[in-house]
Amino acid sequence: MKILVINAGSSSLKYQLIDMDSSEVMAKGLCERIGIDGKFSQTAGDREIKMDVAMPSHAEAIAQVISAITDSENGCIADLSEITAVGHRVLHGAETFKESVLVTPETMAGMEELVPFGPLHMPGNLMGIRACEKAMPGVPQVAVFDTSFHQTMDPVAFMYALPYKYYEENHIRKYGFHGTSHKYITRRTAEMLGKSSGEVNLISCHLGNGSSICAVQNGKCVDTTMGFTPLEGLIMGTRSGNLDPAAIFEIMERENLTPAQANDLLNKKSGFLGLSGVSSDMRDIDAAIAEGNTRAKLARDMLVYQVKKYIGSYLAVLGRVDAITFTAGVGENGIELRRDIVSGLEHLGIELDEKRNDTRRCEALISKDSSKVKLFVIPTNEELMIARDTREIVEAL
Amino acid sequence: MKILVINAGSSSLKYQLIDMDSSEVMAKGLCERIGIDGKFSQTAGDREIKMDVAMPSHAEAIAQVISAITDSENGCIADLSEITAVGHRVLHGAETFKESVLVTPETMAGMEELVPFGPLHMPGNLMGIRACEKAMPGVPQVAVFDTSFHQTMDPVAFMYALPYKYYEENHIRKYGFHGTSHKYITRRTAEMLGKSSGEVNLISCHLGNGSSICAVQNGKCVDTTMGFTPLEGLIMGTRSGNLDPAAIFEIMERENLTPAQANDLLNKKSGFLGLSGVSSDMRDIDAAIAEGNTRAKLARDMLVYQVKKYIGSYLAVLGRVDAITFTAGVGENGIELRRDIVSGLEHLGIELDEKRNDTRRCEALISKDSSKVKLFVIPTNEELMIARDTREIVEAL
Repeated sequence: MKILVINAGSSSLKYQLIDMDSSEVMAKGLCERIGIDGKFSQTAGDREIKMDVAMPSHAEAIAQVISAITDSENGCIADLSEITAVGHRVLHGAETFKESVLVTPETMAGMEELVPFGPLHMPGNLMGIRACEKAMPGVPQVAVFDTSFHQTMDPVAFMYALPYKYYEENHIRKYGFHGTSHKYITRRTAEMLGKSSGEVNLISCHLGNGSSICAVQNGKCVDTTMGFTPLEGLIMGTRSGNLDPAAIFEIMERENLTPAQANDLLNKKSGFLGLSGVSSDMRDIDAAIAEGNTRAKLARDMLVYQVKKYIGSYLAVLGRVDAITFTAGVGENGIELRRDIVSGLEHLGIELDEKRNDTRRCEALISKDSSKVKLFVIPTNEELMIARDTREIVEAL
Repeated sequence: MKILVINAGSSSLKYQLIDMDSSEVMAKGLCERIGIDGKFSQTAGDREIKMDVAMPSHAEAIAQVISAITDSENGCIADLSEITAVGHRVLHGAETFKESVLVTPETMAGMEELVPFGPLHMPGNLMGIRACEKAMPGVPQVAVFDTSFHQTMDPVAFMYALPYKYYEENHIRKYGFHGTSHKYITRRTAEMLGKSSGEVNLISCHLGNGSSICAVQNGKCVDTTMGFTPLEGLIMGTRSGNLDPAAIFEIMERENLTPAQANDLLNKKSGFLGLSGVSSDMRDIDAAIAEGNTRAKLARDMLVYQVKKYIGSYLAVLGRVDAITFTAGVGENGIELRRDIVSGLEHLGIELDEKRNDTRRCEALISKDSSKVKLFVIPTNEELMIARDTREIVEAL
């Protein structure tokens, strides 16, 4: 079975064609500048395509994807009939979609209603679905939501202490994001522990340009750091994470900012970038630290400190913790960062093996054999998780 | 030595006259409705005064305090010369005042500059100092700041991940509050452990109408839950505590709120009150829970859950923790609340003794003898702490 995985944004579209028998990525590619001009690239094995091609809308982008994967020279399948289903990444399922769903007129209408929850991402996500429906009539489409893994949280974890009407009427609560990644990490960590995922308690640390941590009990999310939007929680590339809301009001009054401008400030100009003045990228931050930049060092140390604190909180919430897993760009590559995060946590049963920790971008156990809590590095694979959810739904049809 | 402790707000003024040899409160009283009409009450031993008296300004309020404590029938001292010094509670010392200071023209000018940090409280605090200077010329006045105990925090704990200029130019950072209470709790907990306060690692949980938790390492604050203002951190009587800033922007846009109105919403209409719709007072919340009110139960459970999470974070930050101490109204009285907060933390070396925990408003060890981390209830005494700081400064003159 071959599944096409689509991650469509407003002006870009990433995809992978996955052979589910081997979990092998047969082709992966990227459409950029949709609606502007159009740039396309694909890799299938050692065969590459790179070209400028007009993509006035998502329809042309999908047509280009199909043309590329079925290309006799640089593609990987003979024709579209080999694709069993398409899985789409969708940002927000709110409380409507607690799991992945088959795209039908009803579920599509439900997703339309959730556009206000993700005004920047949802329209692109939905355009991607519609374009595929047109281009591949009859091929089942599945929507996989970045929030649904977190829908098992209890109200004590997801409610904000606001007047209750904002929850009842406006659905303002913590939703959490990176759910597909945390779900993948949960399953894979369980496998590496030799447990079923329903038995595993873990802390999943997805540290990248956007970062979130998830507390998982018996395979289910009980808490996570991102909130109503991906702004809450840890310091990130350009996002502030948590702060005193009154600090924002002070800045808004001082600079006469609208809520949208303040949101922009906290989402796009804060975090590593705002604090260091250097970059949102951890590699640039590390380079600046090497040159003695103290503000870059502060930004990095704040990430370490905040992750350490969340690990402590989630240890308190979870009781028994089988493992802590690091994933995503910074989590997979940050050897010193991982070391610093868990340093001083030996009294909580967390013991890093420095030698084992000397690894990047591959699956590894990095704790000592004596460590009560196992530590893992596991590269995340959201596309494979989307493909698996898609297969599960399609097989049940 | 007798020290007068003053806690002056914009329209009220609380005071205690403390005999430092015995730590005994000789008189305590309250001026209310200053600038409106004026209500006064005082208790000195079993002698009470209650009266309406015109208090157009803090000057008349202080005159009334002096008249009452020197009253031959219901007072407690013969004349003003018995008062060695006056200690004032001042909300905000920002980064200017890292410790309590003698009031001089210079320190007074420094405090004037900090009014923007506490526009609601600082003017009243300063009016109280000025009124005392006039009424008791030559008597040393000491300012004790609610923030200064937290000035030992490291930048990783106190910085927000905002563009750096907001710290450099506008001093926006975490300051923390309830410092006088956390300092008192630190000293008293150390005494109860038979340690010097410089040796003690503890988590101080000040849970009242306003709530904050403080992580103390070797007697010094290393982290705390309140932030730039007292809004950050835990759910409180009427304050929201932490939430996704983007949730507020959503509400501001929806309801067309100014930053000041949004600040008001989060500070005065949220927390227990907003969530339960019942009351900001834990006693009312408990009564509502007993009647089956699920929203009141949610508010209470959120407090429990959040305190549990902060205890976990601070265990991670502190390494060794000697004790967790509960104080303030809810912390001193909440038998079930304390039980629920520490329940499930046995794996972290925290074991409550249910029988010992059956206590209110008095000093008690409430952990089992086998508990690695000792648990205490200690009634806070901010006035005594202010008086002690005042004595220390006055004795060094």
